[in-house]
Amino acid sequence: MAPALPVSPLARPLPELGSIRGVRLGAAAAGIRYQNRTDLVLAEFIAGTTVAGVFTKSKCPGAPVDWCRDILPDGEARVLVVNAGNANVFTGKAGRETCTVTADAAAQLAGCSPRNVYLASTGVIGEILPHERITAALPALHASLSETGWEAAARGIMTTDTFPKAAIRTATLNGATVTLQGIAKGSGMIAPDMATMLGFITTDAAIPAPVLQRLLSEEIKTTFNCITVDSDTSTSDMALLFATGTAENAAIDENTTTDAPILGAFKAALHSVLKELALLVIRDGEGVTKLITIQVSGAVSDDSAWRVAMAIGNSPLVKTAIAGEDANWGRVVMAVGKCGEPADRDTLSVSIGGVCIAHNGTVVAGYDETPVVNHMKGQEIEIEVSLGLGNGSARIWSCDLTHGYIDINGSYRS
Amino acid sequence: MAPALPVSPLARPLPELGSIRGVRLGAAAAGIRYQNRTDLVLAEFIAGTTVAGVFTKSKCPGAPVDWCRDILPDGEARVLVVNAGNANVFTGKAGRETCTVTADAAAQLAGCSPRNVYLASTGVIGEILPHERITAALPALHASLSETGWEAAARGIMTTDTFPKAAIRTATLNGATVTLQGIAKGSGMIAPDMATMLGFITTDAAIPAPVLQRLLSEEIKTTFNCITVDSDTSTSDMALLFATGTAENAAIDENTTTDAPILGAFKAALHSVLKELALLVIRDGEGVTKLITIQVSGAVSDDSAWRVAMAIGNSPLVKTAIAGEDANWGRVVMAVGKCGEPADRDTLSVSIGGVCIAHNGTVVAGYDETPVVNHMKGQEIEIEVSLGLGNGSARIWSCDLTHGYIDINGSYRS
Repeated sequence: MAPALPVSPLARPLPELGSIRGVRLGAAAAGIRYQNRTDLVLAEFIAGTTVAGVFTKSKCPGAPVDWCRDILPDGEARVLVVNAGNANVFTGKAGRETCTVTADAAAQLAGCSPRNVYLASTGVIGEILPHERITAALPALHASLSETGWEAAARGIMTTDTFPKAAIRTATLNGATVTLQGIAKGSGMIAPDMATMLGFITTDAAIPAPVLQRLLSEEIKTTFNCITVDSDTSTSDMALLFATGTAENAAIDENTTTDAPILGAFKAALHSVLKELALLVIRDGEGVTKLITIQVSGAVSDDSAWRVAMAIGNSPLVKTAIAGEDANWGRVVMAVGKCGEPADRDTLSVSIGGVCIAHNGTVVAGYDETPVVNHMKGQEIEIEVSLGLGNGSARIWSCDLTHGYIDINGSYRS
Repeated sequence: MAPALPVSPLARPLPELGSIRGVRLGAAAAGIRYQNRTDLVLAEFIAGTTVAGVFTKSKCPGAPVDWCRDILPDGEARVLVVNAGNANVFTGKAGRETCTVTADAAAQLAGCSPRNVYLASTGVIGEILPHERITAALPALHASLSETGWEAAARGIMTTDTFPKAAIRTATLNGATVTLQGIAKGSGMIAPDMATMLGFITTDAAIPAPVLQRLLSEEIKTTFNCITVDSDTSTSDMALLFATGTAENAAIDENTTTDAPILGAFKAALHSVLKELALLVIRDGEGVTKLITIQVSGAVSDDSAWRVAMAIGNSPLVKTAIAGEDANWGRVVMAVGKCGEPADRDTLSVSIGGVCIAHNGTVVAGYDETPVVNHMKGQEIEIEVSLGLGNGSARIWSCDLTHGYIDINGSYRS
């Protein structure tokens, strides 16, 4: 393995984590790929826990993604098993067997059906995942599970991540105070098409699986699906939301829609947790030195605005200019122009750091670059584009492209 | 300006260039942006020269692109003016005025209509191009034009290019031997959607403008439109093909289609010139150390194969792995999976350097990485993907992503 990476300059400390009643978890070193660190995470949920999930849209998904998609309609979860270092992707029949054997072993420990066991893997693609190392480690790990194992779990799922990621929120739901607490991993191969990362969020709220799924699907769109590190979508993306029901809020009807007032506070808290986890992934983007927020307005639709914003956020020339602290707004114009979405040069405006630089197709008269140059020296860069065509808008987050990215990805497998 | 860049390790020497009767050209230092080098190129064509062109599909094209698009239907060219260092993009009314003033000045020198003057600009976006520097330099430059000014022209259009680029071919056409000779520039902001570069090809063939246009539009598709350095499409892309008619081949009817046998040899030579120029651009890709050829077959259509190939060729993770000489074929699988084109993991095969690594959704039994590791150490990397779905195929060319790219693009304007 390459030597340990220095911690991202944009890292955030772990928040003070509580526990979610009905969730016990922990991590162990199964020796799957890494030496001297944990790489296997197990979580067990109380009976009756509902679950929702979103998965990578990759046409080449990993075996665990197939496994989870298959069992998700049952809507009930009792166990989560995650390993880091090997993604179990493009591993054919052996990969499917690893899933079956792992789920059987975990189900036996928890006394549940294998179809209540969720699996996730992250790491190298195309190498057989040795399930015997997982099943050998599971019994001791299961015996060690606790309600306070959150930090261990957040660390155990890391790959090229340089810091562990977690978020916590509370909300009121139908007469009870409920908590949401989640962990995530992600640093490279990060582009939206769902999450491009692993995210596991739990809550003690009692919410039927169909409602949980509608909430997760909706809130993913403006959080995990609005980040990009390198435009490369993972084969292993997965975000799962588990609801134990231990907060004992009054029952929510399973036909409740996401705009129902009864769900308002919970939905806002869910959005907030997902957004924080998503931004933590960008803050750990491979080689990152700057967090970039890109706001596009005046597009013909929200979807169109999102695609324009992503074209800017994925442009190597925009990202290298920001790494070099160069307010090269011409590259923003280039990215808008190339992306194939409706745009009109002569109604286009570009601002950086709140300073309007270009307006209606040309540079603003008397444009003074000084405040923009100062803004570029900061860690958080803001780009605003107005297309002047309609009311569509979107906001996405990206990071700069630096020597660190090349270092990490030229030697990942070595 | 940043210090001069070292010459690309994949550079090719200029071929021995001849002349095209009816074309006189040269270069001068107009001081537009660069110091101590030529940055203005002028070419004059004999009366009766026909012209064809293809342009960037960017929604934010430069003023010279608008200018050329407007005059192209006339089908006749007498002058070409190209400047390097300033792209005259997003410059509003001032940019349009620069075009008009430059075309007027050049037309007066050549004794033709301004609508026979083709303009191209390349360099920084969003800065006003001072036309008085161009018009001041034009008279002396015009007086110095010669049939042997080709190398000077090839050098005068360079920006971040580290070597000049030209190609020459001959063919027979309707009883005469004709020559095609062209120059190009391009190194970064290179992605297909036409040429993403400047290319100027001349021939002494006599070909009506509509036929010339059909030939150029067709051959661009498999040459300039099949290269990528960084997925970023320029606002200034332009490829122009000028035919002086001085070879005096027998007349070609203007309704001749591109599949007519009479055009066969010329069309093949045109393809060959365009492909050579396109590959020279990749060989000068910013920071390049490896030329990557990506062949995709078994797709549902040729267009689909092209999009899959481009997803591989544009993937930062594939490109950094190749820079690191890492045969990380899992990232090829990732890129196929993410691009949204029809693909089936379980019929997918991947070869690198002629060695089949993965087949039908899993790694080949007994796969020995040794020959692939050796292949990765070379300068030319070959990736083949078979989707196993249909008969669509495409071949594209890309380059690796290295520290050199970050160096060049973090400081381009400084």
